[in-house]
Amino acid sequence: MRIIVVGGAGTIGKAVVEQLAARHEVIVAGRSSGDVRVDISSADSVRSLYDRVGSFDAVVCAAGEAHFGPFETATEDELALGIASKLLGQIRLVLLGRARIADGGSFTLMSGYIFDDPIPEAVSFAIANGGVEGFVRAAALALERGVRINAVSPGMARDSAEAFATFNPGRVPVEMHVIAGAVQRSVEGRRTGEIIRTHG
Amino acid sequence: MRIIVVGGAGTIGKAVVEQLAARHEVIVAGRSSGDVRVDISSADSVRSLYDRVGSFDAVVCAAGEAHFGPFETATEDELALGIASKLLGQIRLVLLGRARIADGGSFTLMSGYIFDDPIPEAVSFAIANGGVEGFVRAAALALERGVRINAVSPGMARDSAEAFATFNPGRVPVEMHVIAGAVQRSVEGRRTGEIIRTHG
Repeated sequence: MRIIVVGGAGTIGKAVVEQLAARHEVIVAGRSSGDVRVDISSADSVRSLYDRVGSFDAVVCAAGEAHFGPFETATEDELALGIASKLLGQIRLVLLGRARIADGGSFTLMSGYIFDDPIPEAVSFAIANGGVEGFVRAAALALERGVRINAVSPGMARDSAEAFATFNPGRVPVEMHVIAGAVQRSVEGRRTGEIIRTHG
Repeated sequence: MRIIVVGGAGTIGKAVVEQLAARHEVIVAGRSSGDVRVDISSADSVRSLYDRVGSFDAVVCAAGEAHFGPFETATEDELALGIASKLLGQIRLVLLGRARIADGGSFTLMSGYIFDDPIPEAVSFAIANGGVEGFVRAAALALERGVRINAVSPGMARDSAEAFATFNPGRVPVEMHVIAGAVQRSVEGRRTGEIIRTHG
């Protein structure tokens, strides 16, 4: 398969690329590095990504920002970052890619444990993750030509655990290959409309 | 209690007002009717609502639009309606009201069964509902002065079932008093950070 990994240079993206590249042709897309540049917060940039890549069988998104910081003082603009980037950015990849993806292709978006087990600093992530999960389940019912869509909900990733462990007391990090394996199950499996969780 | 019901003239709002008015002072807020006018898609309008109402103990939101129509042709702008109104509009009521609400007060937002059991015409609702559920669970951890927040997730409401039954084959309508009862449990109970579902 020819697979676009958006955010392929990030913490999770790198693990996904490593996992998929052994068996597939992987195109790494990123905001500041990779084979192709893309900013998923811009529809024009996403259109340009697909123009440059040409044909493809799968899109995996491990990109998207959200606000991290105290909720007590959070403003609408801060919370809206997660909506514009992590939520709408991922949706945009599907809306603009669904007519171009190969028959039977797949989209794999990224939710996260914060939806199931939130922390107050990550309200913006919780909003975006919930929106992504709702989108995936609903969109799966209407994608045509056998195109599938799933979300992977990673736990606290091993490679970012040092930065986030203090905000998540008691949370056991998830090894990178477990998250990458969940992505591979989405890409190579038959499931659609599923949230594949890699956390307890 | 002094309770603001936003969208109090709508299908669900009317049932909520009827349920709560027997025991509380209810202020009906709405876009085109009610005691006070408000458009939750505008931060200025929400600020003005709170300015005019003065002190209050609870906010119930039964307002917020989202796009209903075929997903196959849905554009980003159509899906974004649910984000600007049903998702960000409800969040805005909390962000701008949290410093003004009485100690121990409560916010009750509205999710919906479409998040759990989506239909392809309601992708915009699924996104908004998921975002609301993520927000509620995370925000509950950080609201101060004993302020609580919950979401009610109504099933297909009896009073709108005629319009929506054809899109929801086999779905049993939920009586209005059941939805209103869930709101009352949120307002008068002790729970916080909960999604109170009124559907199977």
